[in-house]
Amino acid sequence: MRILVTLGGTSERIDQVREITNQSTGTLGCLIVAEWLAQQATVDAIVTTHAKKPAPHEQLSVYPIHDTADLVTTMTTLLTTHTYDAVIHSMAVSDFTPSASLSQAQLLEALNQWHYTHPNEDFTAQWFDTLPHPVENKLSSATDHLTVILKKTPKVIQLIKQYQPTTLLVGFKLLVQVEQDELIAVAKKAQQTNQADFVLANDLSQITASTHVGYLVNEQGILAQANTKAEIAHVIVCTLVPIIKRKKA
Amino acid sequence: MRILVTLGGTSERIDQVREITNQSTGTLGCLIVAEWLAQQATVDAIVTTHAKKPAPHEQLSVYPIHDTADLVTTMTTLLTTHTYDAVIHSMAVSDFTPSASLSQAQLLEALNQWHYTHPNEDFTAQWFDTLPHPVENKLSSATDHLTVILKKTPKVIQLIKQYQPTTLLVGFKLLVQVEQDELIAVAKKAQQTNQADFVLANDLSQITASTHVGYLVNEQGILAQANTKAEIAHVIVCTLVPIIKRKKA
Repeated sequence: MRILVTLGGTSERIDQVREITNQSTGTLGCLIVAEWLAQQATVDAIVTTHAKKPAPHEQLSVYPIHDTADLVTTMTTLLTTHTYDAVIHSMAVSDFTPSASLSQAQLLEALNQWHYTHPNEDFTAQWFDTLPHPVENKLSSATDHLTVILKKTPKVIQLIKQYQPTTLLVGFKLLVQVEQDELIAVAKKAQQTNQADFVLANDLSQITASTHVGYLVNEQGILAQANTKAEIAHVIVCTLVPIIKRKKA
Repeated sequence: MRILVTLGGTSERIDQVREITNQSTGTLGCLIVAEWLAQQATVDAIVTTHAKKPAPHEQLSVYPIHDTADLVTTMTTLLTTHTYDAVIHSMAVSDFTPSASLSQAQLLEALNQWHYTHPNEDFTAQWFDTLPHPVENKLSSATDHLTVILKKTPKVIQLIKQYQPTTLLVGFKLLVQVEQDELIAVAKKAQQTNQADFVLANDLSQITASTHVGYLVNEQGILAQANTKAEIAHVIVCTLVPIIKRKKA
């Protein structure tokens, strides 16, 4: 078995000093890597700069990345080099990346400029295209307001089945303080949109230092519930191993 | 001797999942703590969530914080509880914290609203005050552009001499890829503005895995140059210890 695991959380640079991150620590991803290694799998792990690193193992190769653009590059290389029996995409990938950072004076100028060039017109989405994209070493703090405009990142998960239509794909969906029905509905929708075989659905309000509630979901609904990170890792691997063995038989 | 050291980098929340951070790891701050402990000092360390933690020691108390608001609270409490011979403020404190996060539709609405209520007027800084300050669990990613408006945080370093006018204060100034003359001039200015006794001036482009160039600066200019994190920690403590002993004698 050869398995690709992504883990940690991407960080997107605002300038050389500041960045936007998310709270993923990589702890769950490391447990998932360990479960696969215990099943004698060969594991490629894409791991973010700030995440916990999986323990070294002769069957494990680690590929470090920082931001979403790095992830696209590394994942494309790996998916076009190796054939994976399964991809466990546990990494928290930034939905947005900075496209422009403006001081108060720069923003006000960009706003007023619109009206000089589009008299009597409302602002439309085209305004975003008029913004400068300065490359800054370190943004000066000599401004009362700093405005960071972020644009959507590509949906990296959707690359996976494009390159490997027959791999087993497990996606992750994290929401914050929603009813269980909504969580499962959103997870099922993500499963379809991203052509995932399974989605691990979890809610930040049900994650503490010692517990981590997660539901393994497919088109039929909830297949299993886990209550700790170790259980989540175990449930994912135990669900996939028999399917992989059946496909290989 | 009782010493206060701040270390790591603050993180400012955009929502419950995303935050803006800086790249400070806390490695240098941990070395500074260790140098003071080696001098038999009692050390209070304010340490950020994501930073490396100093090794436990019976003379060391650690106060964890996350964002700039936490830092103000904890620092005020400590400065009004204990008298410090020196404060080494090595923490990278965010200059800005999110005050509003707007989807593309929300931003366009807020822009057009200004023109309905201020016909034929340019945008001014007052526009920022009209923005909603929504409390979001997790911002929806169903928007092409997300705009994060940040406002200035209070200058925490300026609290220190307000509470303890006679403590020895060491501030830090990090710039990115500037000439040495400019770095030293900016550090001297920061020293005066913040009533620091010394400023450790450094440039991100001169920081690698094994080297870290730093200049200890006061109103006279460069007092010492260090070329590694360990040397920086050593230079700061060796400069301050005789001054503290002289004051106590």
